[in-house]
Amino acid sequence: MNIGIVGPGLIGGSMAIDLRRRGFAEKVLGVESEKVNAEAALKIGLADEIVSLEDCVEASDIIVLAVPVDAAMALLPRVLDLAAGTEKVVIDVCSVKESMCKVAAGHRARKQYVATHPMAGTEYSGPWAAMPGLFDGRACIFCDVEESSPKAVRIVEGLYDALNMRVSYMRSDAHDMHVAYVSHISHITSFALALTVLDKEKDEKHIFDLASGGFSSTVRLAKSSADMWVPILALNRENVLRVIDTYIEKMKDFREAIDGFDGGRIRELIEEGNKIKRIIR
Amino acid sequence: MNIGIVGPGLIGGSMAIDLRRRGFAEKVLGVESEKVNAEAALKIGLADEIVSLEDCVEASDIIVLAVPVDAAMALLPRVLDLAAGTEKVVIDVCSVKESMCKVAAGHRARKQYVATHPMAGTEYSGPWAAMPGLFDGRACIFCDVEESSPKAVRIVEGLYDALNMRVSYMRSDAHDMHVAYVSHISHITSFALALTVLDKEKDEKHIFDLASGGFSSTVRLAKSSADMWVPILALNRENVLRVIDTYIEKMKDFREAIDGFDGGRIRELIEEGNKIKRIIR
Repeated sequence: MNIGIVGPGLIGGSMAIDLRRRGFAEKVLGVESEKVNAEAALKIGLADEIVSLEDCVEASDIIVLAVPVDAAMALLPRVLDLAAGTEKVVIDVCSVKESMCKVAAGHRARKQYVATHPMAGTEYSGPWAAMPGLFDGRACIFCDVEESSPKAVRIVEGLYDALNMRVSYMRSDAHDMHVAYVSHISHITSFALALTVLDKEKDEKHIFDLASGGFSSTVRLAKSSADMWVPILALNRENVLRVIDTYIEKMKDFREAIDGFDGGRIRELIEEGNKIKRIIR
Repeated sequence: MNIGIVGPGLIGGSMAIDLRRRGFAEKVLGVESEKVNAEAALKIGLADEIVSLEDCVEASDIIVLAVPVDAAMALLPRVLDLAAGTEKVVIDVCSVKESMCKVAAGHRARKQYVATHPMAGTEYSGPWAAMPGLFDGRACIFCDVEESSPKAVRIVEGLYDALNMRVSYMRSDAHDMHVAYVSHISHITSFALALTVLDKEKDEKHIFDLASGGFSSTVRLAKSSADMWVPILALNRENVLRVIDTYIEKMKDFREAIDGFDGGRIRELIEEGNKIKRIIR
């Protein structure tokens, strides 16, 4: 099969690597408007050719929108227009799904579109960040599959099978609520931690000399790209606000217990938090 | 040299492993009141013998207090009483230093005590968590060294040199402020994240099925032991409260920007947070 990757960066590029080496993709056609990224994608070997969007849809069996969600929302109707009336399948890989599905709703080629979210990534971005094996063993969510044709869904299941992902199915609104808790809030807590310490660094030049492994681990996501995260947080606004509010409450619980010299309450909060052991290895 | 390890757990046990295999310690004497931990420490080989506190001080050249900071504060005067008038050196490895130094202040054996903080660890604890190489290349802070005898400081420098640590020197109050920013707050943000998601799990049983690598990374420290962290947060109260307040402000900045559909402001916050790249690999 020929695969079109619109945005051969961390996600799109990593897909290209594994789909090709595992024999799922015969040819990979990339679409990339930034010249330096396009050249890197070719040089790294993420795409056989960099082509226009029209040529990409024309030559591909599956077209993957692997750009930030605001760009994907703008591209989806155009790509569906180009794909309409063919056997071609269009997917996106964005972290917010309800907005994507709304954009596609009512399009005459809606059944050719499958909304997917492969839950994998790193805090890096661009073609340089692409890597083999990124998706192995991770979860991939398909949303609102009843709006897609069964044949299109089967084709996309084949693609994620080649990426070694565990596929599950969910409504797009439920997906967006879930990822607010288990992905989006983690990014905000990391950004806030980075901002807190960077603020202090203005007075205390050497504060980072002491930074521990624990700090690096909790702040790692603060390196994530604004291009990707601004539209995610903006589009998943309701869910994200709800999670931030709960989170701030929990921080205030700690504050109150520490402020009130209440060791028993601090212990309760920590031991309750320890229950995360049940879930995270 | 003979090394006494009071509490051969994650930190004390890991010290024992490396000090022995690198030839710094001839004999390691452990003090451990919990029977199952004592047996594990012997079986794993963290100590040659488990002895009483008195026998440990008697037989050791360096005595390491590697217990939670509240326990270390209670033990320090007793251990200094036992060590007084000898060449023996006493150190602690706690994450809060001003309280430890206050406890030692004015003791006739104060000069035999060196306050140290090896900045290494994992979210696990107990003798089972001890591992070789834990300290390699990490920072170790010595506090208020002018209160210790130069000879004692040199001996302890030798010990941390054997552990491959980079030693630096700081006032205990400055240390406590610094670690509030680069270690303690990371633990609180992880606990708060765990509590936030565990709360939601009561209604949404499968929320963790979607947990991403990013979530695991930011929540990892929430597995940390209450025995260790309750006294740290309680004793470093003033510093920790100040950092929590700044942190909550940063969270609120995000909340306000997202609530106000202010994409430009979300971008500013993220790009400011991205500057952490300068510091963390």
